[in-house]
Amino acid sequence: MAEDIDTAQAADASLLDRYPMRDEHGGIRHEFVAEIARAVQSADAAFLRAIVAELHEADLGDLIEALEPEDRVSLVELTGADFDFSALNEVDDSVREEILEELEPETVAEGVRELESDDAVELLEALDEEDQEEILEKLPPSERDALERSLDYPENSAGRRMQTEFIAVPPNWTVGQAIDYMRETPDLPERFYEIYAIDAAQHWQGAVSLDALLRARRPVPLADLIDEDRRRVSVMDDQEEVARLFGKYNLVAAPVVDTEDRLVGVITIDDVVDVIEEEADEDLKALGGVTSDEELSDSVWTIAKGRFNWLLVNLATAFLASSVLGLFEGQLEKMVALAVLAPIVASQGGNAATQTMTVAVRALATRELGPNNAYRVVMREGLVGLVNGLAFAVITGIAAVAWFQIPGLGVVIGLAIICNLVAGALGGILIPMVLERVRADPAVASGTFVTTITDVVGFFSFLGIATLWFGLK
Amino acid sequence: MAEDIDTAQAADASLLDRYPMRDEHGGIRHEFVAEIARAVQSADAAFLRAIVAELHEADLGDLIEALEPEDRVSLVELTGADFDFSALNEVDDSVREEILEELEPETVAEGVRELESDDAVELLEALDEEDQEEILEKLPPSERDALERSLDYPENSAGRRMQTEFIAVPPNWTVGQAIDYMRETPDLPERFYEIYAIDAAQHWQGAVSLDALLRARRPVPLADLIDEDRRRVSVMDDQEEVARLFGKYNLVAAPVVDTEDRLVGVITIDDVVDVIEEEADEDLKALGGVTSDEELSDSVWTIAKGRFNWLLVNLATAFLASSVLGLFEGQLEKMVALAVLAPIVASQGGNAATQTMTVAVRALATRELGPNNAYRVVMREGLVGLVNGLAFAVITGIAAVAWFQIPGLGVVIGLAIICNLVAGALGGILIPMVLERVRADPAVASGTFVTTITDVVGFFSFLGIATLWFGLK
Repeated sequence: MAEDIDTAQAADASLLDRYPMRDEHGGIRHEFVAEIARAVQSADAAFLRAIVAELHEADLGDLIEALEPEDRVSLVELTGADFDFSALNEVDDSVREEILEELEPETVAEGVRELESDDAVELLEALDEEDQEEILEKLPPSERDALERSLDYPENSAGRRMQTEFIAVPPNWTVGQAIDYMRETPDLPERFYEIYAIDAAQHWQGAVSLDALLRARRPVPLADLIDEDRRRVSVMDDQEEVARLFGKYNLVAAPVVDTEDRLVGVITIDDVVDVIEEEADEDLKALGGVTSDEELSDSVWTIAKGRFNWLLVNLATAFLASSVLGLFEGQLEKMVALAVLAPIVASQGGNAATQTMTVAVRALATRELGPNNAYRVVMREGLVGLVNGLAFAVITGIAAVAWFQIPGLGVVIGLAIICNLVAGALGGILIPMVLERVRADPAVASGTFVTTITDVVGFFSFLGIATLWFGLK
Repeated sequence: MAEDIDTAQAADASLLDRYPMRDEHGGIRHEFVAEIARAVQSADAAFLRAIVAELHEADLGDLIEALEPEDRVSLVELTGADFDFSALNEVDDSVREEILEELEPETVAEGVRELESDDAVELLEALDEEDQEEILEKLPPSERDALERSLDYPENSAGRRMQTEFIAVPPNWTVGQAIDYMRETPDLPERFYEIYAIDAAQHWQGAVSLDALLRARRPVPLADLIDEDRRRVSVMDDQEEVARLFGKYNLVAAPVVDTEDRLVGVITIDDVVDVIEEEADEDLKALGGVTSDEELSDSVWTIAKGRFNWLLVNLATAFLASSVLGLFEGQLEKMVALAVLAPIVASQGGNAATQTMTVAVRALATRELGPNNAYRVVMREGLVGLVNGLAFAVITGIAAVAWFQIPGLGVVIGLAIICNLVAGALGGILIPMVLERVRADPAVASGTFVTTITDVVGFFSFLGIATLWFGLK
């Protein structure tokens, strides 16, 4: 497909024809980056302008990340008005902040003016209060007010994500009037998929998709095409809720209304796709014990600090688990096989619990798991733990006896495995559900609790049962 | 937002007004499900038809999953032509298969006829060869051929996902001609966001977005609006590649061309959103040691079997790790503190490695991590491991000495922690990269290898260093 892209771009792109950006695998060519770096260092503005003008914002973003930090800012400065600032929304936050802080506020303000409101907000979000102010001051009042209004909405709310450019017409118009309006209005939104009907007080009346508009003849009243059932979101809705709505009802755009049901903006699918990817990213990283804002471009120090806390929590739980082993020091000395096998019991339980927890966290995130089916799912996970517990009790028991030739050791480790897999299964499903109930993110905290349970239960059941069975003191 | 949905639906939906489907949290109301179940059992077709006709396919899907298995089939049979079969694409595979197998092939064929080609293909995919044939035979030849052609493309290919209904016009038309064509043609695609220009031989010429069409006046030649650079995909492209293209370039639809660059279909964003969610789901589950096809509606037995293999692999690696402990039985007997502390060393390394692995798997999936930055990232992860290794060497060392009052034990466990965190970091980044290189899915296999490394290195370094330091034999 990479070829498709290149040929497609090449169609009328003379320069990118001579200097292709990507190789056949879609990766950026070293030669291309080197060529740009050379042009930046020799301040070859004409060449850079031509290239930058031809690149899609996403490709421009990739190019910026591929450049050396010092060259990034120079590229923006050299290409001036030809540089599309929406490209800065395509790069890692750390890279964006670095560039925006280096640039003159005037330059940034000029760039922001060219953006759709949602892209402008996304860009400004990256800056701290005073930098934001400095740039907003340099914008014409109307644009400044609109952006400030969006920035007043809470982070991750629909109000933050929406673009305030949209097409709204009175519901009593005809198709012909609507089409003529679009033909005559100079600055329509960059891209739009539907138009909206609002009354004089800007109250939501309904939506008309463009394809519906194009199927109908000019005299047809819009009222016949208006879909009043169209799902709309409120400015305060969380972006995750919005994304779920888009995914569920296959929307490409959703009108955003304020508390008085006045139409104030529109959220489009491209923003929602970003949200979906972010959310998936966060869940995955949270389960892996990595902070969601860690980025590939971060420094060693930033990353090490970010991961330290999670490891510290784990260390505490590890000591807790080992303290259980400590309770049985005497038994461990008498029968060292117990010390050798204990980690196996803990590890099996931990993995079974992680399986359950992964499914639970995902099902909670997608709202598949709720009050309606909670009981059934918990029971089922418990049974799954029991079934696999029995299976591995036999396997592990046989292996243990074969290894240490101690009769009875198989029964002991088998019973411990059953206890731990059941405990792990129940912990793996119940802990995420409880965390969700108390409004904590199950993905973040579940892991520690769950593995602590399986370590403690694993060690305690194994050594406790061994103590009784072998009459160790 | 749930309220928004309800009020929106209620606007002209009298029945759903009296029988609201969802509570204020957006969950399905028990009373609603009970009401439907009652109507199904008393074969109240009129009522069910009215309800089903009002429900969005996604809501209908949720309703079906909420019903008892036996009621599901009856609902479809009772509502007949009013039942939108695309709702069956919204339910778990196991539920869908169960329903499709129970239904008469005639009923399914009738339902399939009403679907857009991509929905029809998705539905038929769920059936085995002969069931597919049985239904395809009952379709008119033209529709059958189209579906069979799509089904011939490999699973997860663009050819499978595309819909074959699209609007294509000659490039020499004017805007007016194109609009008139859409007004006069009776059966246009259900929803469309752009039209395509093709030559007499169906060769791709370019795309015109609907908003571009609506901005232009009637006499304007399409040629002026056509975007030849529009990214298009090939029928054989993998759906992941397609999803990446949509996400990167903010597409809502992409033309699909065959090997001769003939336009054969179009993929729309709603299908791509499903793909993105599936992929995220798969990565998450794979890292958690769960097979990607496990579903919340599966039986205890199915799930237990699905998870057994992963646990078996883990058991093998756990025994491998314990065999390292076995090598040091003598030392463990002499100094039981080593047996108590060994799991801590392994656990810290395992968690640090999981952090690195999570980041690596995600970065590989999103193509953020590639040959260009591989070296830098590996070096960085190694350093992160070293930094946190040093930090936790100190913390763990002090804690160990405080606990067991054995001078030197702190140095021993500290050195072991450093070894293991560095080994874990390198394993966590290199193993996924190697797996990717050999075309294996890093998400699936990495976990086992990585934790095996940290267990083995953890135990071996800790007990090995202890043996040397304390001169144990």
